[in-house]
Amino acid sequence: MRHILLTPGPTPLPPEILEILSKPIIHHRTSEFKKILNRVREKIKKVFFTDSEVLIFASSGTGAMEAAVANFFKEGDKVLVIEGGKFGQRWSEICKSFRLQVLKEEVEWGKSLSKERLSEILDSNPDIKGVFSTLCETSTGTVFDIKGYGELLKDKECLLIVDAISGLASEVFYQDEWGADVVVSASQKGLMLPPGLGFLSFSKKAEKFLESSDLPKYYFDVKKYYKSILSDDTPFTPAINLVIALDKALDILLEEGMENVFKKFEKMSQAVRKAISALGLKLFSESPSQSVTAVISPVDSVKLVNLLRTKYKVSIAGGQAHLKGKIFRVAHMGYISYQDLFLGFLYLEKALKELGFELKELSSLNKLKEYM
Amino acid sequence: MRHILLTPGPTPLPPEILEILSKPIIHHRTSEFKKILNRVREKIKKVFFTDSEVLIFASSGTGAMEAAVANFFKEGDKVLVIEGGKFGQRWSEICKSFRLQVLKEEVEWGKSLSKERLSEILDSNPDIKGVFSTLCETSTGTVFDIKGYGELLKDKECLLIVDAISGLASEVFYQDEWGADVVVSASQKGLMLPPGLGFLSFSKKAEKFLESSDLPKYYFDVKKYYKSILSDDTPFTPAINLVIALDKALDILLEEGMENVFKKFEKMSQAVRKAISALGLKLFSESPSQSVTAVISPVDSVKLVNLLRTKYKVSIAGGQAHLKGKIFRVAHMGYISYQDLFLGFLYLEKALKELGFELKELSSLNKLKEYM
Repeated sequence: MRHILLTPGPTPLPPEILEILSKPIIHHRTSEFKKILNRVREKIKKVFFTDSEVLIFASSGTGAMEAAVANFFKEGDKVLVIEGGKFGQRWSEICKSFRLQVLKEEVEWGKSLSKERLSEILDSNPDIKGVFSTLCETSTGTVFDIKGYGELLKDKECLLIVDAISGLASEVFYQDEWGADVVVSASQKGLMLPPGLGFLSFSKKAEKFLESSDLPKYYFDVKKYYKSILSDDTPFTPAINLVIALDKALDILLEEGMENVFKKFEKMSQAVRKAISALGLKLFSESPSQSVTAVISPVDSVKLVNLLRTKYKVSIAGGQAHLKGKIFRVAHMGYISYQDLFLGFLYLEKALKELGFELKELSSLNKLKEYM
Repeated sequence: MRHILLTPGPTPLPPEILEILSKPIIHHRTSEFKKILNRVREKIKKVFFTDSEVLIFASSGTGAMEAAVANFFKEGDKVLVIEGGKFGQRWSEICKSFRLQVLKEEVEWGKSLSKERLSEILDSNPDIKGVFSTLCETSTGTVFDIKGYGELLKDKECLLIVDAISGLASEVFYQDEWGADVVVSASQKGLMLPPGLGFLSFSKKAEKFLESSDLPKYYFDVKKYYKSILSDDTPFTPAINLVIALDKALDILLEEGMENVFKKFEKMSQAVRKAISALGLKLFSESPSQSVTAVISPVDSVKLVNLLRTKYKVSIAGGQAHLKGKIFRVAHMGYISYQDLFLGFLYLEKALKELGFELKELSSLNKLKEYM
C-alpha cells in the first residue's frame, strides 16, 4: 500500500528526484558541480522572482531564518515581528536570541495582519529597522499580505523579511516586485526535495544593512556565501546530492511555468476547500493560503492524524501548540496531486466516520472530482 | 567508466545507502521516524565511543563546529586554537566571529603539536577555557595527539574541543576514554553518507560550560537539540533521508566492528604510504593520519588532480592555501576500498608520467597488491 503524504513538508518526491538521489556522489570542487551550481543559481531566481542571488545553505529552513536575522541587523535594533502562528513566533525567538529589541504584533492564529494596521504600527514606531512576516503561516494555513507590507516599507529605512518556507513555489509571490528585502525558504515543500537545503535572497536595499550588521555569525555568514557564489563555489561542503536534485526540481517547475504552478495550487486549494465544505466542516483560517488548508476538526485531530497514518497510510498534519487536537491540515504544494488528494479524502472520510463524526459518504470526493 | 572517488569527503556511497536515498520520503513527526532516530542515537554513541548523547544537525561539519563554539563559551573567554592547517584555522575564525579571545598556536603545516608544548602553553596561560584541535587535519593528512591533550586537560577547568570531521570512524579515537569534551563530526567522510549532517557530542564536564554560555545561537542551540532528543524528536525539520541512511551506515560500521574498522584503515594507510614510497615520492606529514595521505607532488598537483579527474575519472584532492599545486592527497576512509586505491594508483602512475615525472611503472601497484 502506497503511503500518501499530504503534509506541509516534507512533501512527496517526484520519481526523477528519487532517481537522482540514488546516483553515486560527486565531488563539489569540480567543474561538473560548478556547472550545476551555476545553472541552479540562474534558475532559482525565477522561482523567487528576483534578480538577486539566492544563497544556498546546507540546513533546514530555520537555519536560513537565523541567517536573515544575524546578517542584516545590529545588536539592539528594534524590529517588528508579525506573530500569527508557530513560525511567526520562531522569528521572535531567533530575534531575541540575537539580542534584537522585538516588538511583537500578535495576531489571532488563523488571521492575517491588515496593511492598515501595519501602517499604524510603523507610524508610531518610526525607529523599526525590520518587519518580519511569514508568507504562508503553515501552522494555521494563513497567507499574509506581503505585497501590501512591501508597499508600506518601500521608501522606509526598514527591511521586509519574509519566511517563504512553506509558500515558495505554491503561494503567489514575487520577491522583487513586492519589495521583499530578505526572503528565506527551504527544500522540502514547494521545491519537492528532501529537507536539508535552506535559501536566502536579499535586495539592493538590504545590502546596506548587511554591511553594518555586527551580530556574530559564521556558518550562516551571508557575505561568505555571496563571495563564493561569484566563483561558482560554496564556502563549506554543500549538500551535494540535494543541490544536484534541485537542478532537476527547478527544471520541473520552470517547464510547468511559475504562473501555471500558482494557478494550479489556487485551483487545488479551492477544490480542497469545497471538499471540506461538502463534509460540513469549516476552514480555520480567515485568510486561507493556497499551499495548505487548515480545518476545524470535528473530532480530536491527534486521533484523526494517527488513525489516518497507521490504518490508511495517509499523512496529514494536526494542530500545533494550543491548536493541538483542534485542527487538521492538508497540504497542496510541491508534488502533491489531485490523485493524492482524492485518495486522501477517501480515507479522511472513513477515518472521520470511525471516530464518530457523521457525514454523507463520498461527498468530498464528489466535489474534488469536478476539478480533476 | 566508473568514477573513482579517493577524496577526503565526500567519500563513495555504499549501494545500500544509495538504495535508501532513493526511497519515498516519510514524515519526521511519526513513530516510524522516532524509532529510527532512537536506534541511530544509541548506535552512533558506539562510533564516538561515548556514553553521552550525539546531537544531529541538518548542516555540514562547519555548522557543528560553530555549535561547539557558540554553546560552551562566554563572550571574551580566552581559548587556545591549535592551528596546523586549514581546519585549525577555521576554529580560529569561528571563535573570533563569536568574540572569543583567541590564542593561536600555529604549528607548521604537516606537523602535530606535542603534548609537552601544549603543557607549557597551559602553564603560562592558566585562564584558557578551551583548547581547540583537529583529530585529523584533512588539509595536511596529519593526526593530532588528542589522547595526550586529554590527559593534560582532564583535571583542569578547560574543555578539549575536537574537530573529528575527517577522523571519525577511520582514525583511532575514543571520546570518553581520551577526555574529549566536545566532539564534532559530519556525514560525508567515515560515515559513508552524502554531506548534510553535522554531529556534536559533549561530556559531563562540558555541561557546566553549556549552562553558563552567553553567546547568541538558535539553529545550533545545543540545549534545544538535547531537550528534544529526550522525546526522540528534533527541534527543527531534520535531514530525514540522511538520518534514515545513517541508520544503515551505522549498521555497516558496527557489524564490521569499530576496532576492525580502525585496523582496516591503519593497514590501508600503510599500504598507501608504501605505494607512495615505491613511486619515489615523500609524505608531506610528519604525523601521518590513517584517514588521508598527503604527498609532496613531483609535478604541479593542480594539473595532476585535473588530469586524473577529466581523463581517468579518478578524484584525488590537491593542496589548499599555500600548499596549492604542492601536494596531493589520497583518502582511505569510509567506503573507499583497496580496489578503488589499486585502480586509483594505476591512473595516478599514468598521470604522473604524462606530466613528465619519471617512474618505474606498476611499482606502486606491486606494493599495494601485497595488502590486498
